[in-house]
Amino acid sequence: MSIDYRSLLVIAVEEARQGLAEGGIPIGAALFRRDGTLLGRGHNRRVQENDPSVHGETDAFRKAGRQRSYRDTIMVTTLSPCWYCSGLVRQFGIGTVVMGEAVNFQGGHEWLREQGVEVIDLNDAECIRMLGDWIAANPHVWNEDIGEDDACGHGH
Amino acid sequence: MSIDYRSLLVIAVEEARQGLAEGGIPIGAALFRRDGTLLGRGHNRRVQENDPSVHGETDAFRKAGRQRSYRDTIMVTTLSPCWYCSGLVRQFGIGTVVMGEAVNFQGGHEWLREQGVEVIDLNDAECIRMLGDWIAANPHVWNEDIGEDDACGHGH
Repeated sequence: MSIDYRSLLVIAVEEARQGLAEGGIPIGAALFRRDGTLLGRGHNRRVQENDPSVHGETDAFRKAGRQRSYRDTIMVTTLSPCWYCSGLVRQFGIGTVVMGEAVNFQGGHEWLREQGVEVIDLNDAECIRMLGDWIAANPHVWNEDIGEDDACGHGH
Repeated sequence: MSIDYRSLLVIAVEEARQGLAEGGIPIGAALFRRDGTLLGRGHNRRVQENDPSVHGETDAFRKAGRQRSYRDTIMVTTLSPCWYCSGLVRQFGIGTVVMGEAVNFQGGHEWLREQGVEVIDLNDAECIRMLGDWIAANPHVWNEDIGEDDACGHGH
């Protein structure tokens, strides 16, 4: 049986929408076993809780609690995982990453591929649009979230 | 004025000892500005809170709250940062990492050096002893913390 990655992405998108509804950055994630069991789901809460450590992926990982092994797990995220979240995937040996898009941001997903992690890019139009619109409206918070110091104003 | 890295390490060691006193994994960290201002301090709480996402470094980062820039910050940790925490350092552009030791575990500190992060290894005897003793007494929890699946029993 092949895994329907798009059905898993639905959960991450729901989380991103929830974040958006809370006034936060719309990035969501969920951690599954390969048999489809949902272990944890979460979303970025930098704005809502003034907590820069809560990315979608780290939140889903946290909610999943302690696990003996992550080899057969799938991290589904609406966006290419940043270096922080890519490091999480590598350290804990998460076998597969499914990402909604890598258009608005490219994190460490190519590096993860080089490390033997299976990475699937669904290039999902809704993920691209939802985050793209948000970044356009909130460039400073976005730069803060990805660790880009835009105090000089040129927003690189 | 040169920075006294050993005086900064004292705070991370205090955190590690606190974790040990709580029955947890003795790894601590603290985030400072280069002028010595303490931004946040924390310790691993996998055991205490059943939360695998709280490493010393991520806890210190979280406690520091939202910061405009991390370029002039120093992450001080009792142990070489794992990939998860190394990814955090890279993503947020933390300029310097001071580690108590890299004997019991080697994470991504060489990779961070390649990325231009200043990495200082204090090779501290107390850090080596405290964590080394704990790992010897708790090998399974340790392997869980670093994402090593030792279910097969050979404990690699």
